Amino acid sequence: MAYELYYWDGLQGRGEFIRLALEQAGADYVDVARTDGGMDKMFAFIEGRQGNQMPFAPPFLKDGEIIVSHVANILHYLGPKLGLVPEGEQARIFAHGLQLTIADFVMEVHDTHHPISTADYYEDQKEEAKARTKAFLQHRVPKFTGYFNRVIAANPAGGGHAIGDRLSYVDLSLFQVAEGLAYAFPRAMARFDADYPDVAKLRDKVRTQPNIRSYLESDRRLAFNESGIFRHYPELDQDPA
Amino acid sequence: MAYELYYWDGLQGRGEFIRLALEQAGADYVDVARTDGGMDKMFAFIEGRQGNQMPFAPPFLKDGEIIVSHVANILHYLGPKLGLVPEGEQARIFAHGLQLTIADFVMEVHDTHHPISTADYYEDQKEEAKARTKAFLQHRVPKFTGYFNRVIAANPAGGGHAIGDRLSYVDLSLFQVAEGLAYAFPRAMARFDADYPDVAKLRDKVRTQPNIRSYLESDRRLAFNESGIFRHYPELDQDPA
Repeated sequence: MAYELYYWDGLQGRGEFIRLALEQAGADYVDVARTDGGMDKMFAFIEGRQGNQMPFAPPFLKDGEIIVSHVANILHYLGPKLGLVPEGEQARIFAHGLQLTIADFVMEVHDTHHPISTADYYEDQKEEAKARTKAFLQHRVPKFTGYFNRVIAANPAGGGHAIGDRLSYVDLSLFQVAEGLAYAFPRAMARFDADYPDVAKLRDKVRTQPNIRSYLESDRRLAFNESGIFRHYPELDQDPA
Repeated sequence: MAYELYYWDGLQGRGEFIRLALEQAGADYVDVARTDGGMDKMFAFIEGRQGNQMPFAPPFLKDGEIIVSHVANILHYLGPKLGLVPEGEQARIFAHGLQLTIADFVMEVHDTHHPISTADYYEDQKEEAKARTKAFLQHRVPKFTGYFNRVIAANPAGGGHAIGDRLSYVDLSLFQVAEGLAYAFPRAMARFDADYPDVAKLRDKVRTQPNIRSYLESDRRLAFNESGIFRHYPELDQDPA
């Protein structure tokens, strides 16, 4: 039976981290909200019409009777089934911890354009967004991306992955983060490859995986846009520190 | 062998969600950073001197050779061992999803006093903090707390827990969130018990568990303070909407 992914149509958003894993594995899945009547099916779960274990928000995944919400929870569930995480308890716990750090980083990326309220437009918090983005680029990108670079460099398998000796869902997510940062902040990321060479090499490795390349060229891959997490507002971008 | 919890001394912070689980279960644990030389031991992990699988930040837990970072990851690991999550794959996945929603909420609580930059003092972003807190109290508290109230009310076991028919780590975390909100925003939370009766009843149930009561009266329980997640700045508090 096909996996059912539930996520908003029209943006990559948090759903993209799941799509990349499913696509890399060549898994059979339905992107439900992008099918006819799919939005109502999605809200049936959120509103508790499909049982008491309602998700707080998309994305969530349905696999038969199992429902999993939150990106990191979904990837923790799918990883072993899709062959996208190494064997062994400690490896899976570490991979999950890395994915949770990515989740925190993604929330901080979102807040660069919405530092005051998600209920208001970006245009209503533009000055605060400039201040938050400045601090984000100065402090948070180096802290998070530097960490991921150290993790890849310290991996004893030595193959340039975040964990173990082959591609994992963490690598796919780091690709998405690197691509998103480059889309949102092209000026500020001008030295990204020099500053974070191991992340950059991993990004390039993911980009050339046959299944990922096919996906990126398909109409299943939505373009980055200003409804997503990574938004390009030129007034927020700035020269590298 | 005792569990080793690594978290900053001097604040409840994110470590408190782990402490509550260990205390409720009567588990043998060491709060390492609060022992002599403990801070250096903690940084040895973060700086990669204890192996390549370095945590991004505290809290993390060491259990023999296993190292687990991030609150939700730690509780997902400890839950079955401490008897603080129901049996069964779907129950554990749902509990983990709830805990991840709590993690997102906790990050939003933090950002009420630090909406622009964690590298700057609260006093340097006080006006933005007022705006963010206003939106938080108006939109985000009802969204998150209302969700948790619905989940408890919809639990088919009917015993007032978030999941299953007995206390879980999710219940302990919801207690901490309810207590923290009441500490930080006493005016805004004046109608909390009326608005979220199931969360309030669960909070009271947790508070009277014998092991939790002993813990709360011990010097192991640090008081809420303005170094933690939940901070009481009277100028941010406001009348209920």
